[in-house]
Amino acid sequence: MSFPTVPPIPLRPGSRHAGSRIWTNDLVDHTGERVTLSGWLHHRRSLKSVCFLIMRDASGLAQIVVDDPATRAEVESLPHESVLTVAGEVVASAQAPGGIEMHWPTVEVLSRALDEPPIELFRPELAAQLPTLLDTAAVSMRHPRRAAIQRLSAAVVEGFRATLRAERFVEIATPKIIGTTPEGGANVFELDYFGKPAFLAQSPQLYKQVMVGVLERVFETAPAFRAEPHDTTRHLNQFTSLDAEMGFIDDHRTVMAMTTRAIAGMIEAASSLDLVRRHPESAIPEVPEAIPDIHFTEALEAISQATGEDVRGEPDLAPAHERWLGEWARREHGSEWLYVTGYPMAKRPFYTHPDPDGPAWSNSFDLLFRGLEIVTGGQRLHRYEDYIAALAERGIEPEGFAGYLLAFRHGMPPHGGFALGLERFVAQLAGIANVRETTLFPRDMQRLTP
Amino acid sequence: MSFPTVPPIPLRPGSRHAGSRIWTNDLVDHTGERVTLSGWLHHRRSLKSVCFLIMRDASGLAQIVVDDPATRAEVESLPHESVLTVAGEVVASAQAPGGIEMHWPTVEVLSRALDEPPIELFRPELAAQLPTLLDTAAVSMRHPRRAAIQRLSAAVVEGFRATLRAERFVEIATPKIIGTTPEGGANVFELDYFGKPAFLAQSPQLYKQVMVGVLERVFETAPAFRAEPHDTTRHLNQFTSLDAEMGFIDDHRTVMAMTTRAIAGMIEAASSLDLVRRHPESAIPEVPEAIPDIHFTEALEAISQATGEDVRGEPDLAPAHERWLGEWARREHGSEWLYVTGYPMAKRPFYTHPDPDGPAWSNSFDLLFRGLEIVTGGQRLHRYEDYIAALAERGIEPEGFAGYLLAFRHGMPPHGGFALGLERFVAQLAGIANVRETTLFPRDMQRLTP
Repeated sequence: MSFPTVPPIPLRPGSRHAGSRIWTNDLVDHTGERVTLSGWLHHRRSLKSVCFLIMRDASGLAQIVVDDPATRAEVESLPHESVLTVAGEVVASAQAPGGIEMHWPTVEVLSRALDEPPIELFRPELAAQLPTLLDTAAVSMRHPRRAAIQRLSAAVVEGFRATLRAERFVEIATPKIIGTTPEGGANVFELDYFGKPAFLAQSPQLYKQVMVGVLERVFETAPAFRAEPHDTTRHLNQFTSLDAEMGFIDDHRTVMAMTTRAIAGMIEAASSLDLVRRHPESAIPEVPEAIPDIHFTEALEAISQATGEDVRGEPDLAPAHERWLGEWARREHGSEWLYVTGYPMAKRPFYTHPDPDGPAWSNSFDLLFRGLEIVTGGQRLHRYEDYIAALAERGIEPEGFAGYLLAFRHGMPPHGGFALGLERFVAQLAGIANVRETTLFPRDMQRLTP
Repeated sequence: MSFPTVPPIPLRPGSRHAGSRIWTNDLVDHTGERVTLSGWLHHRRSLKSVCFLIMRDASGLAQIVVDDPATRAEVESLPHESVLTVAGEVVASAQAPGGIEMHWPTVEVLSRALDEPPIELFRPELAAQLPTLLDTAAVSMRHPRRAAIQRLSAAVVEGFRATLRAERFVEIATPKIIGTTPEGGANVFELDYFGKPAFLAQSPQLYKQVMVGVLERVFETAPAFRAEPHDTTRHLNQFTSLDAEMGFIDDHRTVMAMTTRAIAGMIEAASSLDLVRRHPESAIPEVPEAIPDIHFTEALEAISQATGEDVRGEPDLAPAHERWLGEWARREHGSEWLYVTGYPMAKRPFYTHPDPDGPAWSNSFDLLFRGLEIVTGGQRLHRYEDYIAALAERGIEPEGFAGYLLAFRHGMPPHGGFALGLERFVAQLAGIANVRETTLFPRDMQRLTP
């Protein structure tokens, strides 16, 4: 990643050393100058005549050569992760990492660590198990690879927003405490709201639809909450939901075109970063202008023929089927991405629009990325009477949805939208096996702290 | 506001009328052409020989002259808010609003409203009382002035993010379900988390501090939840908190400089929009390069001298005192903005950094905008032993904060940050008396729906 060369607010305003602080990754531009660095004592190697101090800041690492005995004694007395400001001369050196290092440093201790950190952050790979990494997140997140995942998440979210803003979507903020649960009450966190029962929103679905009536094209990037008792590598009980909804569509294919744009914008934003590449498949993939698609029934047919397992009557795709389809898309279309369209109406929520040519199927889609579902979307019902019928068919009382149905009573255009779980997307992108590693402080069935 | 002229995804992909849809506010660029509009039946005026149809889309309003008897009969049969696609010729007309109108339309009804909306959206001002506006938000939000407030909110949030990104802040997403409440358990929503008690986060305070240890400069724009039993015009039980935190500061003055930058970026973003200007004071204010500031004790002294009411011993500023200071800043400094610094430690949370020159006061600040506190910020403690002492002094057990204290045990730089409530900021900016009007679907003690 790159930083502007002229920081508008100095990195460290009033260091008592002469000169403003610079980033470690800008050292190479200051060869021969005396500069100031601030950061963490990342690592230290003591040789007979000299001590190498590796300092870490938000931009990277720098090697500092300490030979003055008093400075050396002070540096060697410090636990790792102590916070320092170091001034010295920038010297080109073929032996140094990146060909540059700092000599003749003076060291100011800004904050002395109490003791050694619970995990060794200076190793290229963190050796600890996932529960330890998560328990010690306040420190383990500092590892350059873990921090890079957070930069990747931030870039991807902004890629989503910037793409949709350019398509004239307007950002909205919807209630996370709600009085009625659109998905029917299962897997929802309940809370006490001034003596009334309330729930945490599983998605902004109903609100984003209503807002199509106001702004035509809207998006939200916000936490969503699911009380699913699943202890898998793909589920979190709080996740960041990237949601979009648009009016005046033909059908779900208009939404798919917009989804492809959004994904391409996210991938473009990710491509601008130095990435964690722990697995070969974590290379940033291309997004084709048109992502291939396959109808749900064709997908089941292809899986049945290829695997010998007859899945033709299934109402949904199992994870293994999604993986098979991901391989198929790569093999047949050279694409990491595949839309599956036309899921059966029976498994889709009440606001789903049926396929006019075959009403047992829906105008819906999932987007598979490397064989994992990362986006769900589709066309929604837009006529009031269709909602009344859909709720009745599912035995849901319309009273709880009165504030939502009002929008449909008073004119809503054909519309649809999609939702993407940020953590799952980042995990697939960076080749991370467990979605918990992509988020700062994950919430799962066992984990409420830190 | 302006839209790109070449929409990357057509506004309405497959209208059965010839030609792609354009926005109503682009009509003037198409004089003499036959074009297609889509939108809502905003208003209708029937004269003897002709009917004027006012159509509303996300960009504005357009006047359509209907004189064909069959088309006129159809249009006159439709309730307001029905959704239409209309194709016709664009004609310059001195009598038409904006000097342009559409003639000889053909009309397609995309979605017929069931009946007349509960409030008349075509009036320049919404006549309904606030509870009615909020109960019918799914429709009342469509009023151009209410929709404009949402565009303003969206612009201001992105102004905040863009400014901080340029200053090398990284966006983070922190848990909203937490196991320990940093503010001590008052005014917090409690929920059942798989059989364990948990709380909704009132702010990302502790997490954003921890992340300074990872990324140095971080921000978050996310919902925050306060169970305050306050029924005022300034409080919401869910609000959007714009949070930032930065390391390697001198003291709170570094944070104030960054706050001023962020505010200036938000104001600049707002200035690019057509605004709701319901009150003269809603004009977009300048943000000076350096906002004036006053110490808390000087502020109380000035208020006491001016009003004759002795407030010298007060631990905090009352709303009336904030208003007085707002007037004072405007009179004395020509500024709509004023920092109040050095609030007493006694009223500030445990992580607050004291003023080294007077430890009864803190290195903290509030920013008043037009006499209302909109930002709270300051320097935080950064040494582990200071946290242990601060918690002990307040009688708080450190165990609940173990995951947070770990960061301080292992090296944290001097740091600080600030938080801004979006809805309150937008209300002050647009001259809106009640913060509920700035948010889509407000949550207050009485209001859990829509």
